[in-house]
Amino acid sequence: MIQPIVDKRTILRYLDNEMHEQEDDVVSEFPVTIFLDEEEFATVVCTPEYIEDLVIGFLASEGVIRSYEDIKSLLVQEQEGFAHVELRKALKMNQQFYSKRYITSCCGKSRQNFYFYNDARTAKVMTEKTVKLSVKDCFRLIHLMQSGSDVFQHTGGVHNAALCDRNGIILSRMDIGRHNALDKIYGHCLKHNISIEDKVIAFSGRISSEVLLKVAKIGCEVVLSKSAPTGLALDLAEELGITAVGFIRGASLNVYTHPERIEETPAT
Amino acid sequence: MIQPIVDKRTILRYLDNEMHEQEDDVVSEFPVTIFLDEEEFATVVCTPEYIEDLVIGFLASEGVIRSYEDIKSLLVQEQEGFAHVELRKALKMNQQFYSKRYITSCCGKSRQNFYFYNDARTAKVMTEKTVKLSVKDCFRLIHLMQSGSDVFQHTGGVHNAALCDRNGIILSRMDIGRHNALDKIYGHCLKHNISIEDKVIAFSGRISSEVLLKVAKIGCEVVLSKSAPTGLALDLAEELGITAVGFIRGASLNVYTHPERIEETPAT
Repeated sequence: MIQPIVDKRTILRYLDNEMHEQEDDVVSEFPVTIFLDEEEFATVVCTPEYIEDLVIGFLASEGVIRSYEDIKSLLVQEQEGFAHVELRKALKMNQQFYSKRYITSCCGKSRQNFYFYNDARTAKVMTEKTVKLSVKDCFRLIHLMQSGSDVFQHTGGVHNAALCDRNGIILSRMDIGRHNALDKIYGHCLKHNISIEDKVIAFSGRISSEVLLKVAKIGCEVVLSKSAPTGLALDLAEELGITAVGFIRGASLNVYTHPERIEETPAT
Repeated sequence: MIQPIVDKRTILRYLDNEMHEQEDDVVSEFPVTIFLDEEEFATVVCTPEYIEDLVIGFLASEGVIRSYEDIKSLLVQEQEGFAHVELRKALKMNQQFYSKRYITSCCGKSRQNFYFYNDARTAKVMTEKTVKLSVKDCFRLIHLMQSGSDVFQHTGGVHNAALCDRNGIILSRMDIGRHNALDKIYGHCLKHNISIEDKVIAFSGRISSEVLLKVAKIGCEVVLSKSAPTGLALDLAEELGITAVGFIRGASLNVYTHPERIEETPAT
């Protein structure tokens, strides 16, 4: 890596009624610009690790690619913060609709709660109910996700996302951008063809509509968070068949949607 | 407002070893699509209040407008979540450079830490040192900013930003999107021609590069946060002459950049 993920800075700290100079750890933030077939596509500001996974996950999440095979070549220039992607097939309508508003009345589908065209096109509906978690599993997975992040403990500046099954964490990523942490997981899974069946996302941040949509695109049935959801995220979770569990703190939690996957008594 | 900013939902809450159904408050999330001269420009997902201010602040922050007078007309369709903006002068190169990477070697300026062209063009350098705060002022302003937000207390789902001077809060806004809270303040100030001199931003979230750049565009000399900064935000703060104070919690705080505006002993 060109940049360290944490930087040392000299700061003035006020403590016990006086100011004194000290060294402090600050989390890095690094802009990466993605070029698609030599055209500038987007700039993502991120924690500088797993940049290739981030680019793959971001492109899949934006609906530019459907699988890792859609990418012909990917070159990350770490020093410059550039990622050059060559696609197998040139972008057609995807690009035209990138971040464009989804106007329900113009389209045949009934996806009322979607606001971006590409989301309505790519988010999966979870009809399967293969995941079963006990409330104790929820507490344990959130605890594991949180305790795995040294950088957050030190700098207070990153979000964590973890791909889990009932037994524990399979893959954990952190980033200063909440969405990036999920894109890094998505990219890794696409690249290594990891099956998402039976899997769960544990997340340190709020369940916003964008987070919920990313979980749906990755293809997970359950999202666990120690924080709050938004109303729109819950509408989308309802529509997409995703179980949203929030405010997982201490010995309490809230099940907001599709509670059939959460068992009150410990599963055996 | 078409949508309430908080929604009632029936949830399952697990507490004291059992699951029970209850009503819960969930914060709303509402997509607003901005059309510039009838062309779709961007979709912002926000807390549905002060949408006109949000649109004005967003356009100024993106470098599309410089003042409120650059807008010929602004119509918000609340039900649809559309904002139609007519500009006095048609967009020229701004649009071309909207969210485009700022490549230092191509330009004459020495703004090393900028990653978007429009930021390098619009962020102000704070050469004045008109603001003086004591550490006690910092604690008080953060406390006032936090205690003003009922919605956060109830739902845990929003960020707060407040425009302050040493005497207290002038204007406070909350939003599920951290940047939106700042754009709502910026839009209000532009519309009502509020002088930013001597003013300070108090913010509930992290000081990321985007937050720091918004503070610079609004034109404030100091940003106070109860949370952490990123390395890039501190590089930008150093370059732009902004005092960044973070981790304002209890009786301690960290001064990261330009400490000359913060006085250890209470100002008289």
